[in-house]
Amino acid sequence: MTWTFVNDTFAEEGKATLQTGDLAIQRGYAVFDFFRTNNNVPLFLDDYLDRFFHSAAALFITIPYTRSRVAEIIFELIQKNNLPQSGIRMIATGGYSPDSYTPVQGNFILQQQAIQLPDAARFEAGIRIMTHPYQRDLPAVKSINYLMGIWLQKQLQEKGLDDVLYVHNDIISEFPRANIFIITPERTLATPAHHVLAGITRKKILEFAGALLPVETRDISVRELKNAAEVFMTSTTKRILPVTEIDGIRVGNGKAGPFTRQLLEQFIRLQEPGYGT
Amino acid sequence: MTWTFVNDTFAEEGKATLQTGDLAIQRGYAVFDFFRTNNNVPLFLDDYLDRFFHSAAALFITIPYTRSRVAEIIFELIQKNNLPQSGIRMIATGGYSPDSYTPVQGNFILQQQAIQLPDAARFEAGIRIMTHPYQRDLPAVKSINYLMGIWLQKQLQEKGLDDVLYVHNDIISEFPRANIFIITPERTLATPAHHVLAGITRKKILEFAGALLPVETRDISVRELKNAAEVFMTSTTKRILPVTEIDGIRVGNGKAGPFTRQLLEQFIRLQEPGYGT
Repeated sequence: MTWTFVNDTFAEEGKATLQTGDLAIQRGYAVFDFFRTNNNVPLFLDDYLDRFFHSAAALFITIPYTRSRVAEIIFELIQKNNLPQSGIRMIATGGYSPDSYTPVQGNFILQQQAIQLPDAARFEAGIRIMTHPYQRDLPAVKSINYLMGIWLQKQLQEKGLDDVLYVHNDIISEFPRANIFIITPERTLATPAHHVLAGITRKKILEFAGALLPVETRDISVRELKNAAEVFMTSTTKRILPVTEIDGIRVGNGKAGPFTRQLLEQFIRLQEPGYGT
Repeated sequence: MTWTFVNDTFAEEGKATLQTGDLAIQRGYAVFDFFRTNNNVPLFLDDYLDRFFHSAAALFITIPYTRSRVAEIIFELIQKNNLPQSGIRMIATGGYSPDSYTPVQGNFILQQQAIQLPDAARFEAGIRIMTHPYQRDLPAVKSINYLMGIWLQKQLQEKGLDDVLYVHNDIISEFPRANIFIITPERTLATPAHHVLAGITRKKILEFAGALLPVETRDISVRELKNAAEVFMTSTTKRILPVTEIDGIRVGNGKAGPFTRQLLEQFIRLQEPGYGT
């Protein structure tokens, strides 16, 4: 039995519901965030709460609780569910809008699920991606708008690829659910600076990577991407995952690179002491 | 008491719900359509059903009923609710997706509400709009993604304006929920051809307007828009409504124009015989 918190109560599976008049269902209008727990401890909770409240404010969505009350409910949920290695999703919607268009008091959902991080084999193989011309709307906001990302899944399946990287005017930005980094041939770490979601894993890497190699946040062209020594994606559920093929072109020697490996080791050591134990 | 149909049953107000795991709530992934009834008769139902099923297919969403079964449920809903002048919304979502990303069997919602068309005073005053650089994702599909349209409402309120017209590379496209037409100084009717939703009201006007004046579907620049003799919007809930100001610039003499008026009269006469009686 997994509990979900919705509008002031904990509901059993299948009983957590919103009325069909909610602005998420009527107009896809809601914000969310998603963080992991490790041994029932939320990772980087402050960062995720910052971003969640920032997203809501940017879309004029009212979260019906204070930040500390949200944190309390999160700890209650963790205790009730006891899923030590999990992902927790917070959603705040535009609410039950009388005109199906104007945001009102938001509905709030908190749900938890067990998750598994990519295993060693997945890391070694890396992922194969394609680029696609697109720019997310309001990219700094974690809205629930995944129309393009989900619509493109069909193409990915047909091509046997793992993910799609958005590109706008020849500048790379992000994956639908992850950030991108490159290691240049000169051994500099770089990640796009503009028009991307400020990923928390991205932020943590930027905090500690400077001790290993020079770090730059700046525009990166598709050409530079395809000539990079190493490329990797970062996300809450993937941590750090090598990209080994882009639009049919092999990255480096087509295997997980040494800097990517070192960054993942550092990430786990610094950010997740005692992970999984 | 207004009934809503959701997943095989008619539910009372407040009891029509979806589980929070639905892909509309998780990822804003759903399609919809919206048509009017006049004296409990659906207007242009075939056109709206065509578009609804087309939208669903384009997003790989499975509507769990045949087209004729959907029509049957619509007539049952109309009978139960008896709201002679109404709007009926059909929604098909990405369903209860186990991975919160891949569309599965869709959830289906049918809801009805009384609506009022713009009155004569509203028509005479027309509406004041601004342009905004934006291009809707997958514009031929009526998805529930209204992130940009709703987000821009705040700016509209602050400026005291009625609506926003999307413009991409200096070419006008559409309003968030309506199409646009212009009457050129040479008395030709024109409406954007590309990257817009194929509005049903737009379609009906294109069908009969040729008897009144030459008709063109083609690209229209912002400059041509602002120099038009008349401008109007078309939508299911607005029918035809004059645009009298664009980015602070008056259209024509700032009042409802003669061709716009004639087109509305024709639309009502040809398309809605006995309207409201």
